[in-house]
Amino acid sequence: MTEPLTLTPLPSIPLIQPGDDLGLIIQQAITRAGINLLDGDIIVIAQKIVSKSEGRLVNLRTVEPSQRAIELACATEKDPRITELVLQESKEILRMRPRTVIVEHRLGFVCANAGIDHSNVRGEGDEREEWVLLLPEDPDASARKIRQELEGIYRIRWGVMIIDSHGRAWRNGTTGVAIGLSGLPGLVDLRGHPDLFGYVLQITQVGAADELAAGASLIMGQAAEATPVVHVRGFPYPLRESELSELLRPKEMDLFR
Amino acid sequence: MTEPLTLTPLPSIPLIQPGDDLGLIIQQAITRAGINLLDGDIIVIAQKIVSKSEGRLVNLRTVEPSQRAIELACATEKDPRITELVLQESKEILRMRPRTVIVEHRLGFVCANAGIDHSNVRGEGDEREEWVLLLPEDPDASARKIRQELEGIYRIRWGVMIIDSHGRAWRNGTTGVAIGLSGLPGLVDLRGHPDLFGYVLQITQVGAADELAAGASLIMGQAAEATPVVHVRGFPYPLRESELSELLRPKEMDLFR
Repeated sequence: MTEPLTLTPLPSIPLIQPGDDLGLIIQQAITRAGINLLDGDIIVIAQKIVSKSEGRLVNLRTVEPSQRAIELACATEKDPRITELVLQESKEILRMRPRTVIVEHRLGFVCANAGIDHSNVRGEGDEREEWVLLLPEDPDASARKIRQELEGIYRIRWGVMIIDSHGRAWRNGTTGVAIGLSGLPGLVDLRGHPDLFGYVLQITQVGAADELAAGASLIMGQAAEATPVVHVRGFPYPLRESELSELLRPKEMDLFR
Repeated sequence: MTEPLTLTPLPSIPLIQPGDDLGLIIQQAITRAGINLLDGDIIVIAQKIVSKSEGRLVNLRTVEPSQRAIELACATEKDPRITELVLQESKEILRMRPRTVIVEHRLGFVCANAGIDHSNVRGEGDEREEWVLLLPEDPDASARKIRQELEGIYRIRWGVMIIDSHGRAWRNGTTGVAIGLSGLPGLVDLRGHPDLFGYVLQITQVGAADELAAGASLIMGQAAEATPVVHVRGFPYPLRESELSELLRPKEMDLFR
Protein backbone atom coordinates (compact mmCIF):
# COMPACT_ATOMS: atom_id res chain seq x y z
CA MET A 1 0.00 0.00 0.00
CA THR A 2 1.27 3.45 -0.90
CA GLU A 3 2.20 5.52 2.11
CA PRO A 4 -0.22 8.29 3.02
CA LEU A 5 0.80 11.92 2.83
CA THR A 6 0.29 13.42 6.27
CA LEU A 7 0.42 17.16 6.98
CA THR A 8 0.42 18.01 10.66
CA PRO A 9 0.29 21.61 11.89
CA LEU A 10 2.68 22.12 14.80
CA PRO A 11 0.78 23.41 17.83
CA SER A 12 1.50 26.46 19.94
CA ILE A 13 3.96 28.35 17.76
CA PRO A 14 4.30 31.68 19.62
CA LEU A 15 3.81 35.06 17.95
CA ILE A 16 7.09 35.65 16.15
CA GLN A 17 9.12 38.80 16.79
CA PRO A 18 12.08 40.25 14.87
CA GLY A 19 15.24 38.38 15.83
CA ASP A 20 13.46 35.21 16.98
CA ASP A 21 15.32 31.98 16.27
CA LEU A 22 12.86 30.10 14.07
CA GLY A 23 14.92 26.91 14.00
CA LEU A 24 14.82 26.74 17.79
CA ILE A 25 11.12 27.59 17.93
CA ILE A 26 10.31 24.87 15.38
CA GLN A 27 12.44 22.35 17.23
CA GLN A 28 10.56 23.12 20.46
CA ALA A 29 7.23 22.74 18.65
CA ILE A 30 8.27 19.39 17.17
CA THR A 31 9.18 18.21 20.65
CA ARG A 32 5.89 19.45 22.11
CA ALA A 33 3.95 17.74 19.33
CA GLY A 34 5.71 14.48 20.17
CA ILE A 35 6.67 13.91 16.54
CA ASN A 36 9.35 11.30 16.02
CA LEU A 37 11.19 12.73 13.04
CA LEU A 38 12.17 10.45 10.20
CA ASP A 39 14.67 10.85 7.41
CA GLY A 40 12.87 12.50 4.49
CA ASP A 41 10.36 14.48 6.53
CA ILE A 42 9.67 18.06 5.40
CA ILE A 43 8.86 21.23 7.33
CA VAL A 44 6.69 23.84 5.58
CA ILE A 45 6.74 27.36 7.01
CA ALA A 46 4.43 30.29 6.30
CA GLN A 47 6.27 33.28 4.84
CA LYS A 48 4.87 35.65 7.44
CA ILE A 49 6.76 34.24 10.39
CA VAL A 50 10.00 34.02 8.41
CA SER A 51 9.64 37.66 7.36
CA LYS A 52 8.85 38.75 10.90
CA SER A 53 11.78 36.88 12.39
CA GLU A 54 14.01 38.57 9.82
CA GLY A 55 12.70 42.01 10.71
CA ARG A 56 11.02 42.72 7.36
CA LEU A 57 8.41 44.98 8.96
CA VAL A 58 8.36 48.48 7.51
CA ASN A 59 6.81 51.48 9.23
CA LEU A 60 4.89 53.27 6.50
CA ARG A 61 5.70 56.64 8.11
CA THR A 62 9.32 56.12 7.12
CA VAL A 63 8.44 55.60 3.45
CA GLU A 64 8.81 58.57 1.07
CA PRO A 65 6.86 57.84 -2.13
CA SER A 66 8.59 58.64 -5.40
CA GLN A 67 6.78 60.40 -8.23
CA ARG A 68 6.33 57.07 -9.98
CA ALA A 69 4.84 55.54 -6.83
CA ILE A 70 2.39 58.46 -6.52
CA GLU A 71 1.27 57.95 -10.11
CA LEU A 72 0.86 54.20 -9.54
CA ALA A 73 -1.10 54.92 -6.38
CA CYS A 74 -3.47 57.20 -8.29
CA ALA A 75 -3.95 54.62 -11.01
CA THR A 76 -4.68 51.81 -8.55
CA GLU A 77 -6.34 53.64 -5.63
CA LYS A 78 -3.64 52.39 -3.26
CA ASP A 79 -1.59 54.04 -0.53
CA PRO A 80 1.38 55.72 -2.29
CA ARG A 81 3.73 54.56 0.47
CA ILE A 82 2.72 50.99 -0.26
CA THR A 83 3.09 51.44 -4.02
CA GLU A 84 6.57 52.82 -3.31
CA LEU A 85 7.44 49.58 -1.52
CA VAL A 86 5.81 47.53 -4.28
CA LEU A 87 8.05 49.26 -6.82
CA GLN A 88 11.15 48.75 -4.67
CA GLU A 89 10.36 45.04 -4.33
CA SER A 90 9.58 44.45 -8.02
CA LYS A 91 11.38 44.04 -11.31
CA GLU A 92 8.41 44.85 -13.52
CA ILE A 93 4.72 45.71 -13.41
CA LEU A 94 2.69 43.24 -15.46
CA ARG A 95 -0.88 44.42 -14.93
CA MET A 96 -2.82 46.76 -12.71
CA ARG A 97 -6.39 47.34 -11.68
CA PRO A 98 -7.97 49.10 -8.73
CA ARG A 99 -6.30 47.98 -5.49
CA THR A 100 -4.15 45.39 -7.24
CA VAL A 101 -0.80 45.55 -9.01
CA ILE A 102 0.51 42.32 -10.52
CA VAL A 103 4.30 42.35 -10.60
CA GLU A 104 7.31 40.25 -11.25
CA HIS A 105 8.82 40.28 -7.80
CA ARG A 106 12.57 40.87 -7.48
CA LEU A 107 12.67 37.20 -6.36
CA GLY A 108 11.46 36.19 -9.82
CA PHE A 109 7.88 35.04 -9.30
CA VAL A 110 4.70 36.80 -10.40
CA CYS A 111 2.38 37.90 -7.61
CA ALA A 112 0.02 40.66 -6.51
CA ASN A 113 1.32 43.73 -4.68
CA ALA A 114 4.83 42.27 -4.38
CA GLY A 115 3.57 40.01 -1.61
CA ILE A 116 3.40 42.96 0.78
CA ASP A 117 1.04 42.18 3.58
CA HIS A 118 -1.08 44.36 5.78
CA SER A 119 -2.98 41.80 7.80
CA ASN A 120 -1.69 40.04 10.91
CA VAL A 121 1.14 42.54 11.21
CA ARG A 122 1.69 44.62 14.31
CA GLY A 123 4.45 47.10 14.79
CA GLU A 124 5.27 49.12 17.90
CA GLY A 125 2.31 50.04 20.05
CA ASP A 126 -1.18 49.59 18.64
CA GLU A 127 -0.63 51.29 15.29
CA ARG A 128 -0.67 48.15 13.22
CA GLU A 129 -2.23 49.84 10.24
CA GLU A 130 0.94 51.86 9.79
CA TRP A 131 3.14 48.79 9.34
CA VAL A 132 3.49 46.34 6.53
CA LEU A 133 5.49 43.16 6.06
CA LEU A 134 7.80 42.55 3.10
CA LEU A 135 8.77 39.08 1.89
CA PRO A 136 12.06 37.65 3.18
CA GLU A 137 15.20 39.07 1.56
CA ASP A 138 16.21 35.64 0.20
CA PRO A 139 13.71 32.85 1.02
CA ASP A 140 15.94 30.05 -0.37
CA ALA A 141 18.64 31.19 2.04
CA SER A 142 16.11 31.43 4.88
CA ALA A 143 14.97 27.86 4.21
CA ARG A 144 18.57 26.66 3.99
CA LYS A 145 19.47 28.30 7.28
CA ILE A 146 16.53 26.76 9.14
CA ARG A 147 17.25 23.38 7.58
CA GLN A 148 20.91 23.51 8.59
CA GLU A 149 19.92 24.40 12.14
CA LEU A 150 17.40 21.55 12.33
CA GLU A 151 19.71 19.02 10.66
CA GLY A 152 22.35 19.94 13.22
CA ILE A 153 19.93 19.03 15.98
CA TYR A 154 18.27 15.95 14.47
CA ARG A 155 21.04 14.42 12.37
CA ILE A 156 18.63 13.36 9.64
CA ARG A 157 18.10 14.55 6.11
CA TRP A 158 15.02 16.58 5.44
CA GLY A 159 13.56 19.43 3.45
CA VAL A 160 12.42 22.91 4.42
CA MET A 161 10.04 25.02 2.33
CA ILE A 162 8.74 28.57 2.81
CA ILE A 163 5.33 29.22 1.25
CA ASP A 164 3.02 32.11 0.51
CA SER A 165 -0.52 32.34 -0.87
CA HIS A 166 -0.74 33.69 -4.41
CA GLY A 167 -3.60 34.47 -6.74
CA ARG A 168 -3.58 32.84 -10.16
CA ALA A 169 -4.43 33.51 -13.74
CA TRP A 170 -7.81 32.08 -14.83
CA ARG A 171 -9.00 30.69 -11.50
CA ASN A 172 -10.46 32.30 -8.41
CA GLY A 173 -8.94 31.93 -4.98
CA THR A 174 -5.40 31.94 -3.68
CA THR A 175 -3.34 28.79 -3.35
CA GLY A 176 -0.17 28.10 -1.45
CA VAL A 177 3.04 28.16 -3.52
CA ALA A 178 6.71 27.73 -2.73
CA ILE A 179 8.76 30.92 -2.38
CA GLY A 180 11.86 29.32 -0.84
CA LEU A 181 13.24 25.78 -0.92
CA SER A 182 16.00 23.79 0.62
CA GLY A 183 16.49 20.06 0.31
CA LEU A 184 13.34 19.07 -1.57
CA PRO A 185 12.76 19.09 -5.33
CA GLY A 186 10.80 21.98 -6.78
CA LEU A 187 10.11 20.14 -10.02
CA VAL A 188 9.99 16.41 -10.56
CA ASP A 189 10.69 15.39 -14.10
CA LEU A 190 8.76 12.31 -15.19
CA ARG A 191 9.89 12.45 -18.79
CA GLY A 192 11.00 9.07 -19.94
CA HIS A 193 9.29 7.04 -17.23
CA PRO A 194 7.26 4.20 -18.71
CA ASP A 195 3.55 4.27 -18.00
CA LEU A 196 1.44 1.24 -17.10
CA PHE A 197 1.48 -0.05 -20.65
CA GLY A 198 5.22 0.33 -21.04
CA TYR A 199 4.97 3.39 -23.27
CA VAL A 200 7.31 6.23 -22.51
CA LEU A 201 5.47 9.36 -21.39
CA GLN A 202 6.03 12.28 -23.71
CA ILE A 203 6.61 14.98 -21.13
CA THR A 204 5.43 15.53 -17.60
CA GLN A 205 7.09 17.93 -15.24
CA VAL A 206 5.29 18.03 -11.93
CA GLY A 207 5.48 21.12 -9.72
CA ALA A 208 5.87 18.84 -6.71
CA ALA A 209 6.93 21.54 -4.24
CA ASP A 210 4.00 23.73 -5.25
CA GLU A 211 1.61 20.80 -4.87
CA LEU A 212 2.94 20.28 -1.37
CA ALA A 213 2.77 24.03 -0.67
CA ALA A 214 -0.91 24.04 -1.64
CA GLY A 215 -1.71 21.12 0.64
CA ALA A 216 0.19 22.68 3.54
CA SER A 217 -1.48 26.04 2.95
CA LEU A 218 -4.87 24.32 3.11
CA ILE A 219 -4.23 22.95 6.59
CA MET A 220 -2.56 26.14 7.85
CA GLY A 221 -5.67 28.13 7.05
CA GLN A 222 -5.55 31.86 6.46
CA ALA A 223 -7.43 33.70 9.15
CA ALA A 224 -5.04 33.04 11.99
CA GLU A 225 -1.33 32.81 12.55
CA ALA A 226 -1.97 29.94 14.89
CA THR A 227 -0.49 27.21 12.67
CA PRO A 228 2.27 28.65 10.48
CA VAL A 229 4.43 25.50 10.53
CA VAL A 230 3.41 22.12 9.11
CA HIS A 231 5.25 18.83 9.41
CA VAL A 232 5.01 16.62 6.33
CA ARG A 233 5.49 12.89 6.15
CA GLY A 234 5.17 10.82 3.00
CA PHE A 235 6.45 13.17 0.29
CA PRO A 236 6.64 10.66 -2.54
CA TYR A 237 9.84 11.77 -4.31
CA PRO A 238 13.51 11.57 -3.30
CA LEU A 239 14.87 14.64 -1.52
CA ARG A 240 17.67 16.55 -3.22
CA GLU A 241 19.28 19.99 -3.23
CA SER A 242 17.16 22.58 -4.99
CA GLU A 243 16.25 26.22 -5.30
CA LEU A 244 13.09 28.10 -6.10
CA SER A 245 14.30 29.13 -9.55
CA GLU A 246 13.50 25.71 -10.99
CA LEU A 247 9.81 26.48 -10.45
CA LEU A 248 9.94 29.87 -12.18
CA ARG A 249 9.25 29.97 -15.91
CA PRO A 250 11.63 32.32 -17.72
CA LYS A 251 9.83 35.37 -19.06
CA GLU A 252 10.69 34.59 -22.67
CA MET A 253 9.14 31.10 -22.30
CA ASP A 254 5.90 32.41 -20.80
CA LEU A 255 2.83 32.79 -23.03
CA PHE A 256 0.98 34.80 -20.38
CA ARG A 257 3.28 37.71 -19.58
CA MET B 1 -3.93 20.47 18.52
CA THR B 2 -5.12 21.03 14.98
CA GLU B 3 -6.09 17.86 13.20
CA PRO B 4 -3.65 16.66 10.55
CA LEU B 5 -4.63 16.49 6.90
CA THR B 6 -4.15 12.91 5.75
CA LEU B 7 -4.23 11.84 2.11
CA THR B 8 -4.28 8.09 1.63
CA PRO B 9 -4.11 6.52 -1.83
CA LEU B 10 -6.54 3.60 -2.08
CA PRO B 11 -4.68 0.45 -3.04
CA SER B 12 -5.37 -1.97 -5.88
CA ILE B 13 -7.78 0.04 -8.00
CA PRO B 14 -8.11 -2.14 -11.12
CA LEU B 15 -7.57 -0.83 -14.64
CA ILE B 16 -10.81 0.94 -15.47
CA GLN B 17 -12.81 0.01 -18.56
CA PRO B 18 -15.72 1.82 -20.24
CA GLY B 19 -18.90 1.10 -18.32
CA ASP B 20 -17.19 0.25 -15.04
CA ASP B 21 -19.08 1.30 -11.91
CA LEU B 22 -16.60 3.65 -10.22
CA GLY B 23 -18.71 4.06 -7.07
CA LEU B 24 -18.66 0.31 -6.52
CA ILE B 25 -14.95 0.03 -7.32
CA ILE B 26 -14.14 2.83 -4.86
CA GLN B 27 -16.31 1.28 -2.19
CA GLN B 28 -14.48 -2.03 -2.60
CA ALA B 29 -11.12 -0.24 -2.38
CA ILE B 30 -12.18 1.58 0.80
CA THR B 31 -13.15 -1.78 2.31
CA ARG B 32 -9.86 -3.38 1.25
CA ALA B 33 -7.91 -0.46 2.71
CA GLY B 34 -9.72 -0.95 6.02
CA ILE B 35 -10.63 2.74 6.20
CA ASN B 36 -13.34 3.54 8.72
CA LEU B 37 -15.14 6.39 6.98
CA LEU B 38 -16.12 9.47 8.95
CA ASP B 39 -18.56 12.23 8.22
CA GLY B 40 -16.69 14.95 6.32
CA ASP B 41 -14.20 12.67 4.59
CA ILE B 42 -13.45 13.44 0.94
CA ILE B 43 -12.63 11.18 -2.01
CA VAL B 44 -10.41 12.64 -4.76
CA ILE B 45 -10.44 10.87 -8.12
CA ALA B 46 -8.08 11.26 -11.08
CA GLN B 47 -9.89 12.43 -14.22
CA LYS B 48 -8.49 9.59 -16.31
CA ILE B 49 -10.41 6.82 -14.63
CA VAL B 50 -13.64 8.84 -14.66
CA SER B 51 -13.22 9.53 -18.37
CA LYS B 52 -12.47 5.88 -19.10
CA SER B 53 -15.43 4.61 -17.12
CA GLU B 54 -17.60 7.03 -19.10
CA GLY B 55 -16.25 5.77 -22.41
CA ARG B 56 -14.53 9.02 -23.43
CA LEU B 57 -11.93 7.16 -25.48
CA VAL B 58 -11.80 8.26 -29.11
CA ASN B 59 -10.24 6.21 -31.87
CA LEU B 60 -8.26 8.72 -33.91
CA ARG B 61 -9.02 6.81 -37.11
CA THR B 62 -12.64 7.88 -36.75
CA VAL B 63 -11.74 11.58 -36.60
CA GLU B 64 -12.03 13.64 -39.79
CA PRO B 65 -10.07 16.89 -39.36
CA SER B 66 -11.74 20.10 -40.51
CA GLN B 67 -9.87 22.70 -42.54
CA ARG B 68 -9.46 24.77 -39.38
CA ALA B 69 -8.02 21.77 -37.52
CA ILE B 70 -5.55 21.15 -40.34
CA GLU B 71 -4.38 24.75 -40.20
CA LEU B 72 -4.03 24.57 -36.40
CA ALA B 73 -2.10 21.31 -36.76
CA CYS B 74 0.32 22.97 -39.19
CA ALA B 75 0.81 25.93 -36.88
CA THR B 76 1.46 23.75 -33.84
CA GLU B 77 3.09 20.64 -35.35
CA LYS B 78 0.38 18.45 -33.90
CA ASP B 79 -1.69 15.59 -35.30
CA PRO B 80 -4.63 17.20 -37.20
CA ARG B 81 -7.03 14.61 -35.79
CA ILE B 82 -6.04 15.68 -32.30
CA THR B 83 -6.36 19.37 -33.13
CA GLU B 84 -9.84 18.57 -34.47
CA LEU B 85 -10.77 17.12 -31.09
CA VAL B 86 -9.12 20.07 -29.30
CA LEU B 87 -11.31 22.44 -31.32
CA GLN B 88 -14.44 20.38 -30.62
CA GLU B 89 -13.69 20.41 -26.88
CA SER B 90 -12.87 24.13 -26.66
CA LYS B 91 -14.65 27.46 -26.62
CA GLU B 92 -11.64 29.53 -27.60
CA ILE B 93 -7.94 29.29 -28.39
CA LEU B 94 -5.91 31.56 -26.12
CA ARG B 95 -2.33 30.88 -27.20
CA MET B 96 -0.41 28.41 -29.26
CA ARG B 97 3.14 27.30 -29.72
CA PRO B 98 4.74 24.16 -31.15
CA ARG B 99 3.01 21.07 -29.71
CA THR B 100 0.83 23.10 -27.33
CA VAL B 101 -2.49 24.88 -27.73
CA ILE B 102 -3.80 26.73 -24.68
CA VAL B 103 -7.59 26.85 -24.76
CA GLU B 104 -10.62 27.74 -22.77
CA HIS B 105 -12.17 24.32 -22.48
CA ARG B 106 -15.92 24.00 -23.07
CA LEU B 107 -16.09 23.24 -19.32
CA GLY B 108 -14.84 26.78 -18.63
CA PHE B 109 -11.29 26.33 -17.42
CA VAL B 110 -8.07 27.21 -19.23
CA CYS B 111 -5.77 24.30 -20.00
CA ALA B 112 -3.39 22.90 -22.60
CA ASN B 113 -4.67 20.77 -25.51
CA ALA B 114 -8.21 20.67 -24.06
CA GLY B 115 -7.01 18.12 -21.51
CA ILE B 116 -6.83 15.45 -24.22
CA ASP B 117 -4.52 12.71 -23.15
CA HIS B 118 -2.42 10.27 -25.07
CA SER B 119 -0.57 8.51 -22.28
CA ASN B 120 -1.95 5.63 -20.23
CA VAL B 121 -4.74 5.11 -22.73
CA ARG B 122 -5.27 1.80 -24.45
CA GLY B 123 -8.00 1.10 -26.92
CA GLU B 124 -8.85 -2.18 -28.62
CA GLY B 125 -5.92 -4.46 -29.27
CA ASP B 126 -2.44 -3.06 -28.96
CA GLU B 127 -2.91 0.07 -31.01
CA ARG B 128 -2.92 2.48 -28.10
CA GLU B 129 -1.27 5.26 -30.04
CA GLU B 130 -4.40 5.56 -32.15
CA TRP B 131 -6.63 6.33 -29.17
CA VAL B 132 -6.95 9.40 -27.00
CA LEU B 133 -8.99 10.20 -23.93
CA LEU B 134 -11.26 13.25 -23.63
CA LEU B 135 -12.26 14.81 -20.32
CA PRO B 136 -15.59 13.70 -18.81
CA GLU B 137 -18.69 15.20 -20.43
CA ASP B 138 -19.73 16.92 -17.17
CA PRO B 139 -17.28 16.35 -14.29
CA ASP B 140 -19.52 18.05 -11.67
CA ALA B 141 -22.23 15.56 -12.58
CA SER B 142 -19.73 12.68 -12.52
CA ALA B 143 -18.64 13.70 -9.02
CA ARG B 144 -22.25 14.07 -7.89
CA LYS B 145 -23.18 10.63 -9.19
CA ILE B 146 -20.26 8.91 -7.44
CA ARG B 147 -21.01 10.83 -4.24
CA GLN B 148 -24.66 9.82 -4.31
CA GLU B 149 -23.71 6.21 -4.83
CA LEU B 150 -21.23 6.27 -1.95
CA GLU B 151 -23.55 8.21 0.37
CA GLY B 152 -26.20 5.60 -0.33
CA ILE B 153 -23.82 2.92 0.89
CA TYR B 154 -22.20 4.71 3.81
CA ARG B 155 -24.95 7.01 5.12
CA ILE B 156 -22.52 9.79 5.90
CA ARG B 157 -21.94 13.19 4.38
CA TRP B 158 -18.83 13.63 2.33
CA GLY B 159 -17.30 15.31 -0.68
CA VAL B 160 -16.13 13.96 -4.03
CA MET B 161 -13.71 15.79 -6.31
CA ILE B 162 -12.37 14.95 -9.76
CA ILE B 163 -8.94 16.38 -10.53
CA ASP B 164 -6.58 16.80 -13.45
CA SER B 165 -3.02 18.13 -13.77
CA HIS B 166 -2.73 21.50 -15.47
CA GLY B 167 0.16 23.69 -16.44
CA ARG B 168 0.15 27.26 -15.16
CA ALA B 169 1.08 30.75 -16.16
CA TRP B 170 4.45 31.93 -14.80
CA ARG B 171 5.58 28.74 -13.07
CA ASN B 172 7.03 25.49 -14.34
CA GLY B 173 5.45 22.14 -13.67
CA THR B 174 1.89 20.89 -13.58
CA THR B 175 -0.21 20.91 -10.43
CA GLY B 176 -3.43 19.12 -9.60
CA VAL B 177 -6.61 21.22 -9.93
CA ALA B 178 -10.28 20.51 -9.47
CA ILE B 179 -12.30 19.87 -12.63
CA GLY B 180 -15.44 18.54 -10.94
CA LEU B 181 -16.87 19.01 -7.44
CA SER B 182 -19.67 17.69 -5.33
CA GLY B 183 -20.19 18.37 -1.65
CA LEU B 184 -17.03 20.31 -0.82
CA PRO B 185 -16.40 24.03 -1.22
CA GLY B 186 -14.38 25.17 -4.22
CA LEU B 187 -13.68 28.57 -2.69
CA VAL B 188 -13.59 29.47 0.97
CA ASP B 189 -14.25 33.12 1.63
CA LEU B 190 -12.35 34.45 4.62
CA ARG B 191 -13.44 38.05 4.10
CA GLY B 192 -14.56 39.53 7.35
CA HIS B 193 -12.92 37.00 9.66
CA PRO B 194 -10.90 38.72 12.38
CA ASP B 195 -7.22 37.96 12.46
CA LEU B 196 -5.13 37.37 15.59
CA PHE B 197 -5.18 41.05 16.53
CA GLY B 198 -8.92 41.42 16.05
CA TYR B 199 -8.59 43.33 12.78
CA VAL B 200 -10.89 42.32 9.99
CA LEU B 201 -9.00 40.89 7.01
CA GLN B 202 -9.51 42.89 3.85
CA ILE B 203 -10.11 40.07 1.42
CA THR B 204 -8.96 36.51 1.22
CA GLN B 205 -10.61 33.94 -0.95
CA VAL B 206 -8.86 30.62 -0.71
CA GLY B 207 -9.04 28.12 -3.56
CA ALA B 208 -9.50 25.34 -1.01
CA ALA B 209 -10.56 22.63 -3.46
CA ASP B 210 -7.59 23.38 -5.70
CA GLU B 211 -5.24 23.27 -2.70
CA LEU B 212 -6.61 19.85 -1.85
CA ALA B 213 -6.42 18.79 -5.52
CA ALA B 214 -2.73 19.70 -5.58
CA GLY B 215 -1.99 17.72 -2.43
CA ALA B 216 -3.91 14.71 -3.72
CA SER B 217 -2.20 14.94 -7.10
CA LEU B 218 1.18 14.90 -5.33
CA ILE B 219 0.48 11.59 -3.64
CA MET B 220 -1.17 10.05 -6.71
CA GLY B 221 1.98 10.60 -8.74
CA GLN B 222 1.93 10.80 -12.52
CA ALA B 223 3.79 7.93 -14.08
CA ALA B 224 1.37 5.18 -13.15
CA GLU B 225 -2.35 4.72 -12.88
CA ALA B 226 -1.78 2.66 -9.76
CA THR B 227 -3.29 5.16 -7.31
CA PRO B 228 -6.00 7.22 -9.01
CA VAL B 229 -8.20 7.52 -5.89
CA VAL B 230 -7.21 9.27 -2.66
CA HIS B 231 -9.09 9.31 0.62
CA VAL B 232 -8.82 12.61 2.52
CA ARG B 233 -9.35 13.14 6.21
CA GLY B 234 -9.01 16.49 7.95
CA PHE B 235 -10.24 18.97 5.32
CA PRO B 236 -10.43 22.04 7.54
CA TYR B 237 -13.59 23.74 6.20
CA PRO B 238 -17.27 22.79 6.43
CA LEU B 239 -18.62 20.73 3.56
CA ARG B 240 -21.37 22.25 1.45
CA GLU B 241 -22.95 21.94 -1.98
CA SER B 242 -20.77 23.42 -4.72
CA GLU B 243 -19.80 23.33 -8.33
CA LEU B 244 -16.61 23.91 -10.27
CA SER B 245 -17.76 27.25 -11.65
CA GLU B 246 -16.99 29.02 -8.37
CA LEU B 247 -13.30 28.37 -9.04
CA LEU B 248 -13.36 29.75 -12.58
CA ARG B 249 -12.61 33.43 -13.05
CA PRO B 250 -14.93 35.02 -15.60
CA LYS B 251 -13.07 36.01 -18.74
CA GLU B 252 -13.90 39.71 -18.33
CA MET B 253 -12.39 39.66 -14.81
CA ASP B 254 -9.17 38.01 -15.93
CA LEU B 255 -6.08 40.15 -16.49
CA PHE B 256 -4.22 37.30 -18.18
CA ARG B 257 -6.48 36.25 -21.04
